Amino acid sequence: MVVRTSSSLSTPAEALRALREATPLTQCITNAVVTNFTANALLALGASPAMCDIPGEAGLFAGISGGVLVNLGTPTSEQRDAAREAVAAGTPWVLDPVAVGALPVRTALARELLDAHPAIIRGNASEILALAGTGAGGRGVDATDSPENALDAARSLALRTGGTVAVSGETDIIVDADRTARVSGGSALLTKVTGGGCALGAAMASLLAVATAFDAATAASAIWAVASERAASRTRGPGSFAVAFLDELAALQPANLEGRVDDEVAR
Amino acid sequence: MVVRTSSSLSTPAEALRALREATPLTQCITNAVVTNFTANALLALGASPAMCDIPGEAGLFAGISGGVLVNLGTPTSEQRDAAREAVAAGTPWVLDPVAVGALPVRTALARELLDAHPAIIRGNASEILALAGTGAGGRGVDATDSPENALDAARSLALRTGGTVAVSGETDIIVDADRTARVSGGSALLTKVTGGGCALGAAMASLLAVATAFDAATAASAIWAVASERAASRTRGPGSFAVAFLDELAALQPANLEGRVDDEVAR
Amino acid sequence: MVVRTSSSLSTPAEALRALREATPLTQCITNAVVTNFTANALLALGASPAMCDIPGEAGLFAGISGGVLVNLGTPTSEQRDAAREAVAAGTPWVLDPVAVGALPVRTALARELLDAHPAIIRGNASEILALAGTGAGGRGVDATDSPENALDAARSLALRTGGTVAVSGETDIIVDADRTARVSGGSALLTKVTGGGCALGAAMASLLAVATAFDAATAASAIWAVASERAASRTRGPGSFAVAFLDELAALQPANLEGRVDDEVAR
Repeated sequence: MVVRTSSSLSTPAEALRALREATPLTQCITNAVVTNFTANALLALGASPAMCDIPGEAGLFAGISGGVLVNLGTPTSEQRDAAREAVAAGTPWVLDPVAVGALPVRTALARELLDAHPAIIRGNASEILALAGTGAGGRGVDATDSPENALDAARSLALRTGGTVAVSGETDIIVDADRTARVSGGSALLTKVTGGGCALGAAMASLLAVATAFDAATAASAIWAVASERAASRTRGPGSFAVAFLDELAALQPANLEGRVDDEVAR
Repeated sequence: MVVRTSSSLSTPAEALRALREATPLTQCITNAVVTNFTANALLALGASPAMCDIPGEAGLFAGISGGVLVNLGTPTSEQRDAAREAVAAGTPWVLDPVAVGALPVRTALARELLDAHPAIIRGNASEILALAGTGAGGRGVDATDSPENALDAARSLALRTGGTVAVSGETDIIVDADRTARVSGGSALLTKVTGGGCALGAAMASLLAVATAFDAATAASAIWAVASERAASRTRGPGSFAVAFLDELAALQPANLEGRVDDEVAR
Repeated sequence: MVVRTSSSLSTPAEALRALREATPLTQCITNAVVTNFTANALLALGASPAMCDIPGEAGLFAGISGGVLVNLGTPTSEQRDAAREAVAAGTPWVLDPVAVGALPVRTALARELLDAHPAIIRGNASEILALAGTGAGGRGVDATDSPENALDAARSLALRTGGTVAVSGETDIIVDADRTARVSGGSALLTKVTGGGCALGAAMASLLAVATAFDAATAASAIWAVASERAASRTRGPGSFAVAFLDELAALQPANLEGRVDDEVAR
């Protein structure tokens, strides 16, 4: 079902088309587990990823990038300083607050970085609840809450940052101050591959170069849903699924994304 | 051939079933080369991996995990401190002393960590010999000795730590103070994929959440042997083998593991 | 077309045969994005990779390796010190100056390391121009210049270091003080997989153990061209291409490399 409204500046199809036209340089400060998969996902999608995560370079590189990702999965001391530099560059950026809540170093950093106005915050429900201060965080990287339960927390974060908040789950929910979009579908196999969610945050950062924050987050969720369904339909396990997912990101046509977003302006 | 004895609390089949029931949170402090493959292997197997390897978080996270892996492949300064925190948390843990012997930083750390009583030490024969002080270590990550030659060294380490020592090779040998198990089979293609052994150590850490150290090490070796044989039977090279191996870990049924372990109580 | 000259000590076919005979230990100090793919590519090719990138160990390990790679993609503080140690060990080594030019930390280090006489410098045209001081560097990791435009810069670097310089692009150009070789072919899909170029630099490091710098660089380029063409011919996207590329590296026969290098002594 497509319920596009005039408040949307670009549909997922238009955003994907624009991304492939622009091949935006995308700086990813991300965790050690998913750097390779993230870079390959962005290349397959049509963006140009780079991981420049040391102090003295991260800010400069953010300044010439179209979008920036700060993912807190394995935040070394150098990465923390690099993240601070990068978000000060003025380029729109995505915060992925991996496993915030129970873990103090990343939780403190995530809260500090909120003041630098992330255009998009992407996390699972437990992470969004913890970041908003209304939950204890999940079990490490696993969500123990559902996206609908995190809707109020997501809205409060959006109001605080002036940006968009995307809650990943069986149905993704994307909110800003006024709007709510839901993207359903996708394949559960994506949760059996490390970095599926982290790479989604990176795709949002790439799309920030060519779309508004709300549209970038929505488009990335729709892309993930369609590509993961297609990959799942022809694979037998998580290993071959991850390979097929990259192939499907590259093969994806804008028309494949139609009818994926359920959008409403009033909350 | 199955020669299970009363000294075993759970068979590999029972351990795998218990792991999938528990989906144990498994903290991996591991090297930069294999983080992605390790996380994907644990997800495929049915565990819940997380890499939390910075000081100030590693100990906390170890405390809520079911098992911990400390792999010394690329031990940065922060990882060394994180490892010290993690092994102090009281959660059963696995030491993988990658390339100890010739390399002084990791060798000193591995010897220090022995005092924190690893439930399992997993390495190739050269690493076990070097850690026990009776060998010079291999050629980097390559073993230049056979597991049978490391049997006495493994036993002496087991007596010293009170734990289990698993020596990987063409036939894996698992020993504790009293027992010896051998697991044969598997595919040599596993040695052509980086992280095959490192991910095996991680699987042992996951299994520590649901089985005794000896049974966890034995079950992981049996799982690796069966899944690698199945993957090798339908692939043509190391790239497609690695993908198929993850698929086979996910598809593996407990019944597939029967008859894999040759077990003896008396040494 | 084969235009081998007497100045070549070994053909690509001979170099590949020698590498598989020697399985040379190859130390890779490389970036976090590509460690896994790099290690798997070297294993598939027949070498023995290891990533030993911490101070206090890197120099020792370089001393027992047949070749060393220093790739500046994500140069943490510890990696920078490790690189300095490693290049002082006397083992022939490859410099991959990823994204030098705009980014000051790596640019300063790359220039410093030139004094340690890299046997091979491998980069894209923008990186080679920037390192030679005659260009501004590319857009992050992307080349914005063509190899032919970097020919003079490559030669000046070769004269300065006394080594070989390999410029990667649609046609690879390899130069030393006197000679120029060109390797064409290959698949553009290789640019859609992160680490294709970084792993090529690592292959050159492995081949340094069994061939002269010029022949090692030329052989690696020829191997990459042939393996990527073969992989592309049977895959549908970047995910499956990367897997097939590793399979093809392992399956590659020396005879497959004939006729790949266009060689000239006089410039």
